Amino acid sequence: MKQEEIIAHIRDVKDFPVEGIVFKDITTVLSNPEYLKWMKDEIANLYRAYGITKVVGIESRGFILAPAVAMELGAGFVPIRKPGKLPAETIEVSYAKEYGVDTIQIHADALNEDDVVLLHDDLLATGGSMAAALELVKKFNVKKVYINFIIELEFLNGRKVFGDDVEVSSLLRC
Amino acid sequence: MKQEEIIAHIRDVKDFPVEGIVFKDITTVLSNPEYLKWMKDEIANLYRAYGITKVVGIESRGFILAPAVAMELGAGFVPIRKPGKLPAETIEVSYAKEYGVDTIQIHADALNEDDVVLLHDDLLATGGSMAAALELVKKFNVKKVYINFIIELEFLNGRKVFGDDVEVSSLLRC
Repeated sequence: MKQEEIIAHIRDVKDFPVEGIVFKDITTVLSNPEYLKWMKDEIANLYRAYGITKVVGIESRGFILAPAVAMELGAGFVPIRKPGKLPAETIEVSYAKEYGVDTIQIHADALNEDDVVLLHDDLLATGGSMAAALELVKKFNVKKVYINFIIELEFLNGRKVFGDDVEVSSLLRC
Repeated sequence: MKQEEIIAHIRDVKDFPVEGIVFKDITTVLSNPEYLKWMKDEIANLYRAYGITKVVGIESRGFILAPAVAMELGAGFVPIRKPGKLPAETIEVSYAKEYGVDTIQIHADALNEDDVVLLHDDLLATGGSMAAALELVKKFNVKKVYINFIIELEFLNGRKVFGDDVEVSSLLRC
């Protein structure tokens, strides 16, 4: 299976960003033209029948595939960014991290009630930043929101934080 | 012309990120499915005959179109990131900004001598970060490197910093 071939090309980096963590480095996969295109096509294929109007990517690694998936689905791309990066009026959500609090923002006019949203990020670990992004997108009363990741670290069971009413998919499970 | 139509949809945000600057906000263009796809196709069309093997994007806004252009050209995607973000061994270049110094990094194994590189970022202003990225890519003794931006602020004449031996293109000139 292509999934297994790609997983074998992910680089495990020990003790990054902190001791005890094995970081899943997908830059070794993104630099391969075949794998890069395959990942975009596979994610788009999962959502072709869903009427997605906006693909929302979370800064920075969520920006890598979200716009390409949006193009493939005939949707627009919307960024969620760290504070101070989006120039116009924003709305924001803060969330607890292991040490301290993080905040993410989206433009206040980025989505509307007619949108069907695919929220995308590269990695599902504990799900904290995606849960905050979901809260942010729900503030717009969009029609429907789906969640997708490139990699899901299944042993952390991060998808439980999104609740049962949201469909969550991942391309590669490690 | 499509260029003019898209330029009319860019949002000018006054006094961002600092007083006196008019920020060109392309999120209003990226959220439009037709414009998003058109920009990717146009950039790819410029380089179809060039044998590009890697499209290198500069964090964060360079990540938005670089991977999609790479897919269109049958190339791989390589990120240039801020310090501490790339997990494996990196090489780096520092460059002066108006206030202080910035550093950017690339993985030490990201490129090789057989690569033909398209370096991409969203905006050409004074060209400082792209000049540093060019220096970084040249350290790999790649076969050839080209530079592309979505928007070029022509009145700043930023392209002069890259020297005469590098082809520079931009999609939208403001």
